[in-house]
Amino acid sequence: MPAKSTSWTVNPPLAHDQHLFAGAETLQRSCALAVAEKQEVIVRLLLGSPAWATLPLLVPPLLQIMKEVSRALGNAAADDSKLLLLSAVGSYFCSGIDPSYLIGRLSTDRRKESSRIAEAIRDFVTAFIHFKKPIVVAINGPALGLGASILPLCDIIWASEKAWFQTPSASIRLTPTGCSSYTFPQILGVALANEMLLCGRKLTAQEACSRGLVSQVFWPTTFSQEVMLRVKEMANCSAMVLEESKCLVRSFLKSVLEEVNDRECQMLKQMWSSTKFLESLFTYLQEKVYDV
Amino acid sequence: MPAKSTSWTVNPPLAHDQHLFAGAETLQRSCALAVAEKQEVIVRLLLGSPAWATLPLLVPPLLQIMKEVSRALGNAAADDSKLLLLSAVGSYFCSGIDPSYLIGRLSTDRRKESSRIAEAIRDFVTAFIHFKKPIVVAINGPALGLGASILPLCDIIWASEKAWFQTPSASIRLTPTGCSSYTFPQILGVALANEMLLCGRKLTAQEACSRGLVSQVFWPTTFSQEVMLRVKEMANCSAMVLEESKCLVRSFLKSVLEEVNDRECQMLKQMWSSTKFLESLFTYLQEKVYDV
Amino acid sequence: MPAKSTSWTVNPPLAHDQHLFAGAETLQRSCALAVAEKQEVIVRLLLGSPAWATLPLLVPPLLQIMKEVSRALGNAAADDSKLLLLSAVGSYFCSGIDPSYLIGRLSTDRRKESSRIAEAIRDFVTAFIHFKKPIVVAINGPALGLGASILPLCDIIWASEKAWFQTPSASIRLTPTGCSSYTFPQILGVALANEMLLCGRKLTAQEACSRGLVSQVFWPTTFSQEVMLRVKEMANCSAMVLEESKCLVRSFLKSVLEEVNDRECQMLKQMWSSTKFLESLFTYLQEKVYDV
Repeated sequence: MPAKSTSWTVNPPLAHDQHLFAGAETLQRSCALAVAEKQEVIVRLLLGSPAWATLPLLVPPLLQIMKEVSRALGNAAADDSKLLLLSAVGSYFCSGIDPSYLIGRLSTDRRKESSRIAEAIRDFVTAFIHFKKPIVVAINGPALGLGASILPLCDIIWASEKAWFQTPSASIRLTPTGCSSYTFPQILGVALANEMLLCGRKLTAQEACSRGLVSQVFWPTTFSQEVMLRVKEMANCSAMVLEESKCLVRSFLKSVLEEVNDRECQMLKQMWSSTKFLESLFTYLQEKVYDV
Repeated sequence: MPAKSTSWTVNPPLAHDQHLFAGAETLQRSCALAVAEKQEVIVRLLLGSPAWATLPLLVPPLLQIMKEVSRALGNAAADDSKLLLLSAVGSYFCSGIDPSYLIGRLSTDRRKESSRIAEAIRDFVTAFIHFKKPIVVAINGPALGLGASILPLCDIIWASEKAWFQTPSASIRLTPTGCSSYTFPQILGVALANEMLLCGRKLTAQEACSRGLVSQVFWPTTFSQEVMLRVKEMANCSAMVLEESKCLVRSFLKSVLEEVNDRECQMLKQMWSSTKFLESLFTYLQEKVYDV
Repeated sequence: MPAKSTSWTVNPPLAHDQHLFAGAETLQRSCALAVAEKQEVIVRLLLGSPAWATLPLLVPPLLQIMKEVSRALGNAAADDSKLLLLSAVGSYFCSGIDPSYLIGRLSTDRRKESSRIAEAIRDFVTAFIHFKKPIVVAINGPALGLGASILPLCDIIWASEKAWFQTPSASIRLTPTGCSSYTFPQILGVALANEMLLCGRKLTAQEACSRGLVSQVFWPTTFSQEVMLRVKEMANCSAMVLEESKCLVRSFLKSVLEEVNDRECQMLKQMWSSTKFLESLFTYLQEKVYDV
């Protein structure tokens, strides 16, 4: 398993857990952007790849990551695991949609590409809305854009002291994604949700915790141990009780979230297919270049 | 009134308020597990009994307490009181459903008993959902399980510094009750609600206050005075304004809460009537015995 | 522009921003209770007037202020501005409905006046619900009653350390207004919302921030600069993105808020037209006089 062991090597804080997954069946060893491994009753899904850690400037192919994560969720739904643990390798949790990547795609074929990307986002978010087993998220570092906005679609969210959260959608000419237009006001209150969505307000891990986006913050050096300790204890619960509890908690939300997701992606598609929008995004990127 | 005066004696922090209820009509003096007293415009409902305080290991008959509380709410709804003050004698506020009690009941006649207990819980929770006058809760000590999960169905919640809150449903093989599958995510955010419901996370009084489950925390020594001071001030308000204000605040919630309560109790009944569940609960209780 | 420059003079903390609006088109220079000014893409709406600052005991004509604010929102909706900044001159943000004013009005013609005032409140609140551009609120000082309860209908809420928040509706014989019966429990949790609405609990700026009613608190001396800095940055965003983001965030709420507003105003009308209520309000005011 050379790919896998490299993956642990470039990510020291997680290395001590390696033995946990020693005998694990590697489901998707070939995929380099999201690696899912199942050990007994826990599926561990890691965003990122060794390549990210060594080449941080490389823009990751957005659509491929989203597809790989959705596929991993599909696999985990069908196997006999009790819960899914989502984390990331390297120093970032997730860096969100890159506006340069976006304009590159949209410049080639605006109509087709705007549909394609918006639908990929919709499918990715839908995979989270429909996943029936508990999703525990361990946020090792900064979570930006879509990587922050999907958090309320997961169930238990723990963060390292190093993590921070930002959804600067309006400033990069995007409307909210990942159902954040609905979940953020619900959790953070209208005022803070809008400050995040419209002004790009950055939340520290402690702020995110005191406002309810995450439920506990741990020290970076022991973060991984603390998470694994709790996840293993959770895995002692009955699979049926975990799934039925999640079902009760989500029952009223599911149809609302589906509708919100549709609206948000419809809005993205509509904006991305307008010339006026593309010009505004282009101007923004040019100004940004001059600023640097 | 020997039973009543004993009740005050075993609970020193409340003793100084005794004069308040000196001339009070004792509605249900005979009941030993939940005592309701009306003094002018306040009905004071006390969970527990002297027996609890002196024999803390005695398992209280769950169904009887729930029935007595529901009856007290029914009486208070019909009289000319303005509000209800709910508290408890002894060091605990409420200790929730005991899994040993549960397995004892279910072992005799699984099908009949699972229906009976689930319906008793549903009726108990319904009594809170439908109560039209403001309910003030003064949480003197630990509130566990159903005793914590019904809090958002009440209106004003004050806690002593000694109180803490836990709903370890999943770890004792239960799904959420008391509408907590809906109210906890609404109040605490999805992440903390799930950490409480799925991992049994314990909240201190201060944490519960900063996350919105309770609205103020007081020192144990002056807790009772602080509560009575505020309750008497509230009782100066017009009964009509209090009731209509509560009606407005609850109008959108009532039908949702009824549906949530039905679903939750349906789920309990379904689980309790499965052999697989009973075996899992039995194994859990056996492991617990070996742990101790 | 003598009226306008006086307005800045009586309000030193805002004086340094005067140059921002130097060349601004003054939309409603004649109105003395709410002044709206447009500068480039920002409409700045100031509650209060120099008269308030110099004659703080003067009771402002409630209906006129509400009408002027609604008109200013209507104008701002139609022009090419990107956002609205709402603040107030003087040391208060908003002092809410005065019970003496109320009883004065209702004593003349109970039926007609109760309809008139309730409908004026409904229209005022509706104007906020329907406003499509982001509303930033800068709360310079105490926000009472309707001035506090409409805040969740706005989008971004920043407060000076000097601000505090109170909706003592029940104690002055009022039921909730401004959709607070719905928005306060959503944001603050049921317990704190009811403590504010039923017991008149006062929140400091810091408490309001930690509970989600406001999203940031600034020092009074630099409050105005901090607000303007952020508002100008926000005004760099695309108008379309700002409006569509708000539309997504509000889409599920709009119809609910309309219904809540109708119910709340219906309740006010109903109470105000009852003799029993008027007697209760009269007794309250008399007791208050004796208290002082």
